[in-house]
Amino acid sequence: MTYHLSIDTIRAARALIAPYIRHTPVAPMPHLTRDVYAPLRFKLENLQVSGSFKARGVFNNLLLASDEVLARGVVTASGGNHGLALAYAAHRLGVSATVYLPEAATQDRVARVESWGAHCIRFGASYDDAHREALRFAESQDRLYVEAFDSEATLAGQGTLGLELLEDLPEIDAIFIAIGGGGLIAGVAAALKQIKPELKVIGIEPVGAPSMKAAVNSGHPVQLDAATTIADTLSARRAGDMTHALTAQYVNDIVLVTDGDMIDGMQWLWRHLNQLVEPSAAAAIAAINNGLIDVSGYRCPVVLVCGGNAAAEGVWTYYSDLARAKGTL
Amino acid sequence: MTYHLSIDTIRAARALIAPYIRHTPVAPMPHLTRDVYAPLRFKLENLQVSGSFKARGVFNNLLLASDEVLARGVVTASGGNHGLALAYAAHRLGVSATVYLPEAATQDRVARVESWGAHCIRFGASYDDAHREALRFAESQDRLYVEAFDSEATLAGQGTLGLELLEDLPEIDAIFIAIGGGGLIAGVAAALKQIKPELKVIGIEPVGAPSMKAAVNSGHPVQLDAATTIADTLSARRAGDMTHALTAQYVNDIVLVTDGDMIDGMQWLWRHLNQLVEPSAAAAIAAINNGLIDVSGYRCPVVLVCGGNAAAEGVWTYYSDLARAKGTL
Repeated sequence: MTYHLSIDTIRAARALIAPYIRHTPVAPMPHLTRDVYAPLRFKLENLQVSGSFKARGVFNNLLLASDEVLARGVVTASGGNHGLALAYAAHRLGVSATVYLPEAATQDRVARVESWGAHCIRFGASYDDAHREALRFAESQDRLYVEAFDSEATLAGQGTLGLELLEDLPEIDAIFIAIGGGGLIAGVAAALKQIKPELKVIGIEPVGAPSMKAAVNSGHPVQLDAATTIADTLSARRAGDMTHALTAQYVNDIVLVTDGDMIDGMQWLWRHLNQLVEPSAAAAIAAINNGLIDVSGYRCPVVLVCGGNAAAEGVWTYYSDLARAKGTL
Repeated sequence: MTYHLSIDTIRAARALIAPYIRHTPVAPMPHLTRDVYAPLRFKLENLQVSGSFKARGVFNNLLLASDEVLARGVVTASGGNHGLALAYAAHRLGVSATVYLPEAATQDRVARVESWGAHCIRFGASYDDAHREALRFAESQDRLYVEAFDSEATLAGQGTLGLELLEDLPEIDAIFIAIGGGGLIAGVAAALKQIKPELKVIGIEPVGAPSMKAAVNSGHPVQLDAATTIADTLSARRAGDMTHALTAQYVNDIVLVTDGDMIDGMQWLWRHLNQLVEPSAAAAIAAINNGLIDVSGYRCPVVLVCGGNAAAEGVWTYYSDLARAKGTL
């Protein structure tokens, strides 16, 4: 399909969601050591409310809906950052939210979504099952279903991140963005390229879930047999129709990284920026560290750190054990 | 003793170190749930180069020294954030650095300091032993010893954080700051109170290491028999003479938190701001969450998140195990 996301739609989204989201900071690189790239900058979207960029698209969906629609409640399927963002935004706006997750979803995921007051329903063996049931439920109840990536409201919301970058870093000439369903890269690329067509946008996918690369190569979204990666937020088995159309139009290249590369990238971001992030948010720096993206030709390249919802339980265990050993707990 | 740290000295420090440090961001609170304090803001100094505020004081020391002095190399004793900051700043400025640590310092600490190119020497049973030997070495070699907290150059450097806050948040009316040796609270309080005397500064110490509270109560620094806390960056057994003098003059109150409170505070900062920080950086929010500080009377209260160098090894282990289970590592 062909699809156009106008810059005016993205600008309207920005005005709508601005009171509810954070204008996230950009951190420069410390100028040090051989493995550091002097001009590199990091858009710390892990500092976004709810811990990822997903809050942008979700707020845009909810704020575009009428009070009457919102009063009936909103629905989605996702145990990840999208579900968390919907729960957060619904709580913030005083709207009832229902989030479907596959039965195998961990209790931790359920607890996090429920912590913002959303109603969690476990259904089916896979995300696809939960998604179908959530759609059926939303239709039967005449409730708004909030798409995780393949809708204009969602794409325009994610695109607002591109407008922030152009404002903070007008000299930006390249950006590196991880791809799951493609909503982030499609929205941001549409925003950036319509204003600065010469800018380069490079996407990064896991070797175990290259759904957008497959879509671009085939000329249309294709269903992968499997998605095998620890980066669950990048494990979409099929790109969206709209996200594929925008990616085909605006994204210059897609490179693939391994799970090991992402874990190394997480440690690198921790060491250099003291930011603990989820594996997906380390995909871009992993690609740079492994020579898959050459940043030396850019004057103001930006790594998009898309989300921070990592599993940090091991840290609390470590400190609790330490305190017990000291007799202070 | 009485001691005055002039605002001009702090302003001069800011001009000197500005090209080398980060003007760190301030994150507002997400407006949510009962346990969240709507007007609260967080100064994310864990995003500072080297991972803590210590870089400010260290850069000021080095940039105030002559090229001739720097050419002979610089020395300190600290396996914590101060040692890390010295190693970073020395590397950045092309200066040779020697860092003394007690023999019991973990290999991880040594490795982190050495990763910035500093020469590490293990000496003695305690920090005090390492400190004495480092001073002796610096004197015998005519090298600059960089004080961790009790010197004007260090205090003026830490005070620059206060100037940033007044610029970013002119409406600031309270700030909550953890106390180790007292360099951070003394420098920041001196900067803030000379410009805005009505602002409240509240300090937080671990119940197991209340060296500044003891100094304020006694009217002079006293040596604690022990410092028992997981917050090693807050475990100074004696406040400094200068830091005590400034604290007595400018700090409104000091409250004490337990190690358990700090671990809970770390989890709170992780959940609400996606910032993984060291225990000391969670001391202020721990005091608020436990009702030791009442923020309801302030219009623009600020939590200083002073450092992020937490032990994150458990996170890498978790993700590596996950990847192995998926067969992707």
